[in-house]
Amino acid sequence: MRIAIASDHAGFDLKAELVPVLTEWGHEVIDLGPESDARVDYPDFGYKLANFVAAGDATFGVAICGSGIGISIAVNRNPKCRCARVDDPYSAALAREHNDANVIAIGARLMGVDMAKACIQTFIVGEFAGGRHGPRVNKLSHPSC
Amino acid sequence: MRIAIASDHAGFDLKAELVPVLTEWGHEVIDLGPESDARVDYPDFGYKLANFVAAGDATFGVAICGSGIGISIAVNRNPKCRCARVDDPYSAALAREHNDANVIAIGARLMGVDMAKACIQTFIVGEFAGGRHGPRVNKLSHPSC
Repeated sequence: MRIAIASDHAGFDLKAELVPVLTEWGHEVIDLGPESDARVDYPDFGYKLANFVAAGDATFGVAICGSGIGISIAVNRNPKCRCARVDDPYSAALAREHNDANVIAIGARLMGVDMAKACIQTFIVGEFAGGRHGPRVNKLSHPSC
Repeated sequence: MRIAIASDHAGFDLKAELVPVLTEWGHEVIDLGPESDARVDYPDFGYKLANFVAAGDATFGVAICGSGIGISIAVNRNPKCRCARVDDPYSAALAREHNDANVIAIGARLMGVDMAKACIQTFIVGEFAGGRHGPRVNKLSHPSC
């Protein structure tokens, strides 16, 4: 699977830990930066990731900032992205099952690396349930706000 | 303070519990629905809340669905809204302090009423820190994705 990953400075170290893990799991990882922990603005990297996923260049995106909140807001500006800021694997599963989420957002200052791995793993293997959730997800692609 | 609240069917009961609590706390509460726990689509109520907050008709919004994920995605389609799906009061505080969030999203099937109250209370009293966070928040209002 092609998985894109991006962060801000606060998420840089966790991103660096996760890239080899995702590779070990057999995925092709596209690291969209940043390339150091120098201060950057999370919206820049959120938009970069959103555009990449929206273009179909990756199946899933992993977005990381200090709390996961700021970068999740940025990614969700793109109607083709459904970004879930999750705090546990069950939330990650629901994000795939009910919302067909294609980006997962994680707070590097709030979550340890093993919990992040568990969330991402659950997210990747999750499957959209379809059914009644389909029309709702479709409405997320055509916002009226 | 004027606080708007909206949910889907999964969040209806929690919304009904929170409205009197917010009123007791001295706020003016605008309940944007739904009016029963009949099945609805969370994007409809997320967009309704987003438009209301974006128009300046409420200072803050409270968005509730089963996991908090779907409705947070919907609200964040509006560039004037910054919706944080939170799982604990510290995340709620960070959402205000760093992201100047104006909508808080809660998962009614994942969080008990007392934790929801603690998150919302922390969110409401929180203050945006400004400084380096200002330009980042500004970028969320002018998405490039």
